[in-house]
Amino acid sequence: MTPAQGNVDGAGQGKGRIAVLTGGGDAPGLNAVIRGIVHRANSLGYGVLGLRNGWAGLTTGKETFDLDLDAVKDIHITGGTILGTSRTNPYNIDGGPGMVKTSLDGFGCEYLIAIGGEDTLGVANKLAADGIKVIGVPKTIDNDLSATDYTFGFDTACNRAAEAIRNLHTTARSHSRVIVVEVMGRHAGWITWNSGIAGGAHIVLLPEERFSMDDICHVVEERENAGDPYTIIAVSEGALPDDQESLALQTEERDSFGHVRLGGIAQKLAKSIEARTGKECRHVVLGHLQRAGAPSAFDVVLGTRLGIKAAEMVDAGEFGKMAALRGLSIEAVPLEEAVGTLKTVPDDMIAESRLFWSPD
Amino acid sequence: MTPAQGNVDGAGQGKGRIAVLTGGGDAPGLNAVIRGIVHRANSLGYGVLGLRNGWAGLTTGKETFDLDLDAVKDIHITGGTILGTSRTNPYNIDGGPGMVKTSLDGFGCEYLIAIGGEDTLGVANKLAADGIKVIGVPKTIDNDLSATDYTFGFDTACNRAAEAIRNLHTTARSHSRVIVVEVMGRHAGWITWNSGIAGGAHIVLLPEERFSMDDICHVVEERENAGDPYTIIAVSEGALPDDQESLALQTEERDSFGHVRLGGIAQKLAKSIEARTGKECRHVVLGHLQRAGAPSAFDVVLGTRLGIKAAEMVDAGEFGKMAALRGLSIEAVPLEEAVGTLKTVPDDMIAESRLFWSPD
Amino acid sequence: MTPAQGNVDGAGQGKGRIAVLTGGGDAPGLNAVIRGIVHRANSLGYGVLGLRNGWAGLTTGKETFDLDLDAVKDIHITGGTILGTSRTNPYNIDGGPGMVKTSLDGFGCEYLIAIGGEDTLGVANKLAADGIKVIGVPKTIDNDLSATDYTFGFDTACNRAAEAIRNLHTTARSHSRVIVVEVMGRHAGWITWNSGIAGGAHIVLLPEERFSMDDICHVVEERENAGDPYTIIAVSEGALPDDQESLALQTEERDSFGHVRLGGIAQKLAKSIEARTGKECRHVVLGHLQRAGAPSAFDVVLGTRLGIKAAEMVDAGEFGKMAALRGLSIEAVPLEEAVGTLKTVPDDMIAESRLFWSPD
Amino acid sequence: MTPAQGNVDGAGQGKGRIAVLTGGGDAPGLNAVIRGIVHRANSLGYGVLGLRNGWAGLTTGKETFDLDLDAVKDIHITGGTILGTSRTNPYNIDGGPGMVKTSLDGFGCEYLIAIGGEDTLGVANKLAADGIKVIGVPKTIDNDLSATDYTFGFDTACNRAAEAIRNLHTTARSHSRVIVVEVMGRHAGWITWNSGIAGGAHIVLLPEERFSMDDICHVVEERENAGDPYTIIAVSEGALPDDQESLALQTEERDSFGHVRLGGIAQKLAKSIEARTGKECRHVVLGHLQRAGAPSAFDVVLGTRLGIKAAEMVDAGEFGKMAALRGLSIEAVPLEEAVGTLKTVPDDMIAESRLFWSPD
Repeated sequence: MTPAQGNVDGAGQGKGRIAVLTGGGDAPGLNAVIRGIVHRANSLGYGVLGLRNGWAGLTTGKETFDLDLDAVKDIHITGGTILGTSRTNPYNIDGGPGMVKTSLDGFGCEYLIAIGGEDTLGVANKLAADGIKVIGVPKTIDNDLSATDYTFGFDTACNRAAEAIRNLHTTARSHSRVIVVEVMGRHAGWITWNSGIAGGAHIVLLPEERFSMDDICHVVEERENAGDPYTIIAVSEGALPDDQESLALQTEERDSFGHVRLGGIAQKLAKSIEARTGKECRHVVLGHLQRAGAPSAFDVVLGTRLGIKAAEMVDAGEFGKMAALRGLSIEAVPLEEAVGTLKTVPDDMIAESRLFWSPD
Repeated sequence: MTPAQGNVDGAGQGKGRIAVLTGGGDAPGLNAVIRGIVHRANSLGYGVLGLRNGWAGLTTGKETFDLDLDAVKDIHITGGTILGTSRTNPYNIDGGPGMVKTSLDGFGCEYLIAIGGEDTLGVANKLAADGIKVIGVPKTIDNDLSATDYTFGFDTACNRAAEAIRNLHTTARSHSRVIVVEVMGRHAGWITWNSGIAGGAHIVLLPEERFSMDDICHVVEERENAGDPYTIIAVSEGALPDDQESLALQTEERDSFGHVRLGGIAQKLAKSIEARTGKECRHVVLGHLQRAGAPSAFDVVLGTRLGIKAAEMVDAGEFGKMAALRGLSIEAVPLEEAVGTLKTVPDDMIAESRLFWSPD
Repeated sequence: MTPAQGNVDGAGQGKGRIAVLTGGGDAPGLNAVIRGIVHRANSLGYGVLGLRNGWAGLTTGKETFDLDLDAVKDIHITGGTILGTSRTNPYNIDGGPGMVKTSLDGFGCEYLIAIGGEDTLGVANKLAADGIKVIGVPKTIDNDLSATDYTFGFDTACNRAAEAIRNLHTTARSHSRVIVVEVMGRHAGWITWNSGIAGGAHIVLLPEERFSMDDICHVVEERENAGDPYTIIAVSEGALPDDQESLALQTEERDSFGHVRLGGIAQKLAKSIEARTGKECRHVVLGHLQRAGAPSAFDVVLGTRLGIKAAEMVDAGEFGKMAALRGLSIEAVPLEEAVGTLKTVPDDMIAESRLFWSPD
Repeated sequence: MTPAQGNVDGAGQGKGRIAVLTGGGDAPGLNAVIRGIVHRANSLGYGVLGLRNGWAGLTTGKETFDLDLDAVKDIHITGGTILGTSRTNPYNIDGGPGMVKTSLDGFGCEYLIAIGGEDTLGVANKLAADGIKVIGVPKTIDNDLSATDYTFGFDTACNRAAEAIRNLHTTARSHSRVIVVEVMGRHAGWITWNSGIAGGAHIVLLPEERFSMDDICHVVEERENAGDPYTIIAVSEGALPDDQESLALQTEERDSFGHVRLGGIAQKLAKSIEARTGKECRHVVLGHLQRAGAPSAFDVVLGTRLGIKAAEMVDAGEFGKMAALRGLSIEAVPLEEAVGTLKTVPDDMIAESRLFWSPD
């Protein structure tokens, strides 16, 4: 991966050059997308240029890399993104969109593939309206993007969280404790729902439905009476109680950059349950462990296929659209569909997880 | 889990009793299906009876178990099937179908849920035609059943195989060797395709397309010339060469029970490549490791949802159908759809995997 | 595992009956010890009785279980302890030691094997002085017990922590962040030292040596300048700064039972580094994940061998001693040796880990 | 890692230059040794040169690499060896030892650290007698080297094999089968003994003790009668029956390079047990999976400490010796000690594993 120094000569292959960036939080599978793009783009006659650190790379107009086959060798089975990422939004910068266009021209790139979540795809959508030839690839570890069945990174996160929840059974049982596990999901509970079921949590709490402390303590006590004096609770970081008084909630904390810090709901819940039931309670915050490390098979495959499709969409001229998984096929759908309403866990699935709340 | 001794009294709850069996090869996620059925059936007012060892349990009319909530406690996160399984087919036994009906009556079961692959679902389909109130749940680790997007067990197998393939890179590279990894898939290459990509195999060989020894040796040599003197090849047990002479193939071996033994293709391929390229070649047969152990998060969730749906289909009277995954929802589809044509890897996906055959 | 109801008749086999308890925090490998004891004791002609929840089981004189071969089937590959555990200390209870003796008599047990850490072994040592025929088995996940090379649970915890630290590299690198990982170890840094090296942490902070914020920030900045703008720091929960003012430390928090809560050092460190270097910092507290789940191969083997030895020590009449690992052999050493000075990471090993602090 | 082109100028640092090679089969932890050497050598004032592909690199006098801090960045947590390896022995080549000396001179290397097993250390020992300043680091995944408690790679292999054996329980139980797992160990059964116990195998067969088909079939049948109609057998590739007739054994097969192929004992055993007991038997050969992939925490730590010690031994002038683990410390021991008698599993440990052969 050698610096491209912004030179245009020989940058691409016959059909031109595609710039690629990754924006927002990292998700396992990003490198598979990048590799998929490069292999397919090359086979179609395009060169690929990597932009460093999301939109920041475009607005500063530096730090680019030629993405040739050698640069993406074996990267698909690693986590994170070799391009780096940031939360920079060109529309929050004076003259930002203009700088994007100028930079792309300077790099000799006619096309842009933006891999990211709602923010990144929102920017891509606006740029497309402004005439930039941009293609999106949806990325959210939370799986809460509309217009695609699954997003990569989600399956890996579910496996990580499920394994943690499974493992915690042995220590909870040995000490007759309640353990509250905090799982990613500020606005949608997909990871918690899936990993809660897959890990064997006895109670699952999601942002989609206010929880009742009475219900929770009732299950803990029912389990105790049934001879199972331990309980594992999986809670989304964004879950909230039905009664503010039952739990003094101050989940919003920001770091010195203004980003929201990981919650605090698990700790508060553990303290409250301990106070009400008299049982020893502990909490675990999975945090970055859920997005860290190598992607699952599902996520490498999904990422690879999305990358291949994105390169083909460039070739087919399907700009202003993104590659999305529908059933078993990867399809081109308008970017607007992604940036509309959040996809949350539907009521019937919430009901399904409550089936297992009774002592089992 | 106490023996039910075939007694009818108190067998079910208000609405009657459902018999459940698992047939064919085991797949991670079976226990999640069983637990899902029991929890949902109980909540709907049905009791559940477990039949031991597939259809054998029904034809012998013994070895049954009450499946109450306690019997299925925490089983969903374990591999295999607590009911045991077999390859018995009642239609291959004189008076078999009649015995099934008699046994179900004897057990006080009005309903039957059969969890299994093409064979088991084929039997279920015939029994439905004969008037038995039967529901199917599709199971094949190979993911080659039509009428459902994914089957449980498949994702776990892909993760197991992908991890093996990823790990083998370090030893192949250190010794400058070719390693051929044999992956499950006699008639369809889904596990090989997915785990090959997800594990970073450099060559992927499927039953869907005859392979060329010339092509394979060419890639091995191209990689050597490009400074990567090692190659990982993922091959389905059912893959075949385009030229019989290029590889003396005798993959069919049977054990003393008449079952087809795990192949031999990897070993033959390794020997042939070694002979042609002069490079050291080794082979690894993943075999039972792919179906062994705990299910992935995806498979527990899919199994659980299929089980819940199957119980609901009993309640809704949707007999002669099976529960299937379509996009994100679980739907009832006719059993005939499952037992028709095999779902194989389509040509465009085969082309996708060949994108990565060039030295990378 | 059926309740033993305290009856003496037929309790043991020819040579008498051994009571077994597990005390203190759970550690992966406890069940292997229990199984090892039962198999070896049986082969030597003893019966075994399990006491529930540590010393609590003895002082309350109830909740015991016959530990026969069936009760310990396959338990050695599971985490936690099937006997349960507690932090009860009979010497903190009026007449506690007398109750222990009375209970053992009531259970028909002439011998006691106590599996636990410094507290449990201290109690065992006092009981031995009071004439009870007691044998110890050392257990501390922190590996800080003298008189034994390794304790079971430690290797599992190191693997868990190392895997987390390895995985966190991808997300730290993608976001150019500092991630501080809090690892178990209030008084000794063995897990942090081992997992820090094995996971590739760039800085390792132990309770054995006060750390300097200047040094830490210097490494973070040196790495940035060398083109690696991310840093992983592994810190023991009990590590402290050389200068109290550099980090406002209030690590001691207690739950409603008076137990010390998991720390807070990682969070404080992350905030301080962020404030001083201007880099985004995050923290992860591994907590209970380190002791949760199935034991590593090393820990099952060590636990099994300790259990076998403990049963043999009963038969050889080596009371007042414990089984300990010395090189490759399991030996009987006096209990006093275990309850003396804490085994901490020696200076030369601390120097070894600092070898890797420079940007690499 | 840039080619060093054999130049002497500026090759080392103040005190001279150390050549490093890895020989024989790869083992997880090799890269940790290499990194440990480089960091410690640099801190002591030495430069380090890497030799490619074992002794082959020295005899051909080409393919060397400067091993600076950048070249060994993060390599310790990866499997295999970045130097490559081979089975070349300079004493089998006309004038080989002389070429070694000439090559080292040509590379400007006064010192040599050879990391390898009995063959490599035997060569090192002879070279030391011929006046070469050589230090050894013991490597054998089989743990059968004398003079060191453990060798790196062994713990990783035990964990891999134990996980496979644990996982196979679910499928063996579901199908009521016998599964025979072939584990590494041609002459010593350490991996089989450890992984057999740690994985919960019901029968463990080692090269150290001839096995009896009668005994094995008896356990299989006893387990069936006790209601556990499945058995997992862990067998070393080098295990042999007491009666040649009970099992037609032809385990010796060689590839076109004259290397011994992976066994065949598991398959033969499975067929024989199936024929005698009438039960379905399957076999799995773990093969290269045991040495593939990332090292365990134990192995990274052991490798790192051995590497550090080896560099310190160069500085202390302890040539003709190797770094070895004794209890918790790394000590310098004469190379002769390593190349003498093979370390095999002692009788009392074999007796320990037989404790668990009865139905459990």
